[in-house]
Amino acid sequence: MKILEDRIIKDGVVRAGNVLKVDCFLNHQMDISLFQEMAKEWKARFADKKINKILTIEASGIAIAAIVATAFDNCPVVFAKKTESLNVDGAVYSSKVTSFTKKRTYDVFVSQKYLSPDDHILIVDDFLAVGSALNGLIDIVNQSGATVEGLGIAIEKGFQGGGDSFREKGYQLESLAIVEKLDAENNVIEFRK
Amino acid sequence: MKILEDRIIKDGVVRAGNVLKVDCFLNHQMDISLFQEMAKEWKARFADKKINKILTIEASGIAIAAIVATAFDNCPVVFAKKTESLNVDGAVYSSKVTSFTKKRTYDVFVSQKYLSPDDHILIVDDFLAVGSALNGLIDIVNQSGATVEGLGIAIEKGFQGGGDSFREKGYQLESLAIVEKLDAENNVIEFRK
Repeated sequence: MKILEDRIIKDGVVRAGNVLKVDCFLNHQMDISLFQEMAKEWKARFADKKINKILTIEASGIAIAAIVATAFDNCPVVFAKKTESLNVDGAVYSSKVTSFTKKRTYDVFVSQKYLSPDDHILIVDDFLAVGSALNGLIDIVNQSGATVEGLGIAIEKGFQGGGDSFREKGYQLESLAIVEKLDAENNVIEFRK
Repeated sequence: MKILEDRIIKDGVVRAGNVLKVDCFLNHQMDISLFQEMAKEWKARFADKKINKILTIEASGIAIAAIVATAFDNCPVVFAKKTESLNVDGAVYSSKVTSFTKKRTYDVFVSQKYLSPDDHILIVDDFLAVGSALNGLIDIVNQSGATVEGLGIAIEKGFQGGGDSFREKGYQLESLAIVEKLDAENNVIEFRK
């Protein structure tokens, strides 16, 4: 998606260790007009899917998911919560997620009340690297008996392989920008053609 | 705001210890159409304020803030991040917040890049009880030199006093539902007249 790639080039900062900082428009300060364009793009790409619920994970996926829902008939949004010790009131679906940037493993969970076999889920998140968060969310959807209709990611780090592993498994993964190379020394960002 | 009060009566669950669970529409599963009505209501109540940025705190304020921004000319949203040990890359404004429900104290922070003396801020959050999160966010805005134009809260627990303390200090606090009494035994919820 050209406007997202252009914005990454304009405002993204590359740091050592394959870190791409986009916190001025995506995941600390958030550009809501951009999110609306992203939502329209996902709506077009998933036009043939019957999606009735958006699932994401706290914290930086939540604003994207809320705006995406406005392009999908204002369907409900559910966000998976993170905890370092699963001690939750009530019945939940849970999975384990390892953060690439924070190098920590969390339990993530969704109340069983908010996912059911009748649900057709679009999972959205801001970043996809090795795919740990996405694997956890897919695991949670599968536990509930709901259907994963698609995966919508703002920025995929293509060179880390997570995205291609989901494509190989047959998921419709729509990443709006796929970064193939990050060069911290020269602040160069290359996208997949 | 009648539709929010009606929804709390319909779907809210009162638990011992003055806990009001509204996670089926406000802070785990989220009703985006309701959030749009809330956003319109805040836009009307803050019609005379020149607001150019929305500030909230992760995680459950984020979706509300994103939808609120769509009613305020798609202005940027910034969310304060929580951490149990402040060890953050770059210069930040920070404050301490104690969670009423989790009985824990966090450091919360916002990058100095995203708040400036030119900013006119609407702070929004899902709940207000004693006001710790709101105090932390106001502290952060004050550190930056920006102006707090108003405080928008979905559900205020009026009997815990936080809301009235902000009103006494002269803030325009617009809580869309003010709960005066919670009775867990009979699941009774009473609102301020």
